[in-house]
Amino acid sequence: MAETVTVTLDEASDLCLRVLTGAGLGRRHAEAVAAVIVAGQRDECHSHGLYRLIGCARALATGRVNKAAMPKVIDSAPSILKVDADFGFSSYAYNEGIELAVEKARSQGLAAFVINNCYHFSALWPEVEPLAERGFAALALTPSHSWVAPAGGTKPVFGTNPIAFAWPRVDNHPFVFDFATSATARGEIELHRRAGKSLVPGLALDRNGQPTVDPAEALRGAMLTFGGHKGSALSTMVELLAGPLINDLISLESKALDDGLDATPCHGELILIFDPRVFLGEALGKNLARAELLFDAIIGQDARLPSQRRYQARLNSLHAGMSVQRSVYEELIALVKTLGASRNVCACERPA
Amino acid sequence: MAETVTVTLDEASDLCLRVLTGAGLGRRHAEAVAAVIVAGQRDECHSHGLYRLIGCARALATGRVNKAAMPKVIDSAPSILKVDADFGFSSYAYNEGIELAVEKARSQGLAAFVINNCYHFSALWPEVEPLAERGFAALALTPSHSWVAPAGGTKPVFGTNPIAFAWPRVDNHPFVFDFATSATARGEIELHRRAGKSLVPGLALDRNGQPTVDPAEALRGAMLTFGGHKGSALSTMVELLAGPLINDLISLESKALDDGLDATPCHGELILIFDPRVFLGEALGKNLARAELLFDAIIGQDARLPSQRRYQARLNSLHAGMSVQRSVYEELIALVKTLGASRNVCACERPA
Repeated sequence: MAETVTVTLDEASDLCLRVLTGAGLGRRHAEAVAAVIVAGQRDECHSHGLYRLIGCARALATGRVNKAAMPKVIDSAPSILKVDADFGFSSYAYNEGIELAVEKARSQGLAAFVINNCYHFSALWPEVEPLAERGFAALALTPSHSWVAPAGGTKPVFGTNPIAFAWPRVDNHPFVFDFATSATARGEIELHRRAGKSLVPGLALDRNGQPTVDPAEALRGAMLTFGGHKGSALSTMVELLAGPLINDLISLESKALDDGLDATPCHGELILIFDPRVFLGEALGKNLARAELLFDAIIGQDARLPSQRRYQARLNSLHAGMSVQRSVYEELIALVKTLGASRNVCACERPA
Repeated sequence: MAETVTVTLDEASDLCLRVLTGAGLGRRHAEAVAAVIVAGQRDECHSHGLYRLIGCARALATGRVNKAAMPKVIDSAPSILKVDADFGFSSYAYNEGIELAVEKARSQGLAAFVINNCYHFSALWPEVEPLAERGFAALALTPSHSWVAPAGGTKPVFGTNPIAFAWPRVDNHPFVFDFATSATARGEIELHRRAGKSLVPGLALDRNGQPTVDPAEALRGAMLTFGGHKGSALSTMVELLAGPLINDLISLESKALDDGLDATPCHGELILIFDPRVFLGEALGKNLARAELLFDAIIGQDARLPSQRRYQARLNSLHAGMSVQRSVYEELIALVKTLGASRNVCACERPA
């Protein structure tokens, strides 16, 4: 039997909605989460694709996530739009607030879009890429759980604290990057542990603060930041801007709140939205062309722009469907049955 | 003879003003540059202290810097304040625009402070630290000359593209970091070349795109970013936000404009100013305290906050004067004489 099954985007979306509404989420809430999961699967970001749906269902089962969340949009200041996610998933709050945040960026030149009290399960690129598709530049930051030691230290303080950025390109997909400020993803260490493989050096410390390549020890100890003291400084900035600046938790607090459950972190997120049309006026075209000079200089040698692999995967998925690990797919089908869905989902199973 | 001389802040300031006005800068322009150079020397950032004054004088001698610059402040949008530096030094334009930028941050919640057409010679921390002293958070970005290859490439595209950030602390110096997104400073490679020392591996490529530890080869080839593809992505963001977004040059363009002179880069700068009072309202105190939890967790283990060494050096300088390399000091004294200053400067020379 093939180790993967192939599903279309519609089938994946249907599966997501059945799991999420089956687990008790309202339709609008479920649709927001499903869209992000399908986008992850479509772009072959497997850790944020259908695999992540299992984690979302688990988070819902803990009872912590507010299934009946009603995000509240708050016009906080001329350049600040806040959404209180009401302890639902971040994507729902994002959808409810983004249009007003975009309006602020259009009228002010830039705006801060703040999401508070959200359970955050997604990558950040699905939040900034659509903004660049609409001509904005955007920068997104969020903390997570305190798993990462500061440079020179040995004990976890920071989350994996991702930073994502998007820039609008002419007749092309946006330039987008999205990376953790930790040296590797926590899921990557987990995968090594399951596979019984050693880590490459430089990623983590054990409980005694000594460097380790043993993934189990790394999970009990502390991860390291990327790029030494510079990555550590950036991670501190993410904590401050997407924590205390927006009246929300630092990663130490979200870890304490989690209380050993190891669920999706609950905290805040900051997205800065810049409108180049306001910054540049008539000089817009000249400067979008100038940015292309930069991209040409990168692509024109052996280097690659971030997200190119993702866009290629997207193209493949749209043409040939998405390849999903059979074990993940079967777990989700079983989950739908457990959750009491009345009919079979996705009579679409076929060899990859 | 001692290899250093000790000067007070006032003496250093006087020396700076004589060199700069002697080289033809107007008083207000000279004062702005002098303040930043003295701050660098005071905090023992030697590459940005009095040593940098030699570079400023050289930049003035090229005739490129506009000695009679009249920065123009432009109220560009509700959240965007621009200053056209008129091809003078960045610090002058900063001083002329900063109060209006701060007013915008106060009224809007956040503001973009844009400096265009400036010769940029300074570190970025002197621009963000004073904002945090006044209760703002601030993030500053600027490109430079294209010396740095993108991850996976071999040819220079990016500048050393520094990122600086400051956060206001209660009863304490602000949290401040300021680092190049290149793996090391260009000046550091230059110092190794002069000293005939090899570089540590991982900093640079030679002209053939091969890793090198030979500083002369590194200067002819390409520097690398810190943190691999993540540092490279960040450096791209700096180019875009402090270049095309603000209608100013990318590092490739500023290098081309320089045309082999190797003078101070001429380009733009972006400073984002956040007002936590607007973001937080009554929750300000609670969240400044929350940020202190983060700092305590860092300091409370063996880790150190960025800028602590700088604040310690400042304290020493204020008490005991500043230690300046004799060769630098003597070059500056000679420069003052060459520039036709009429009386001796700093009868303050004494053993360190």
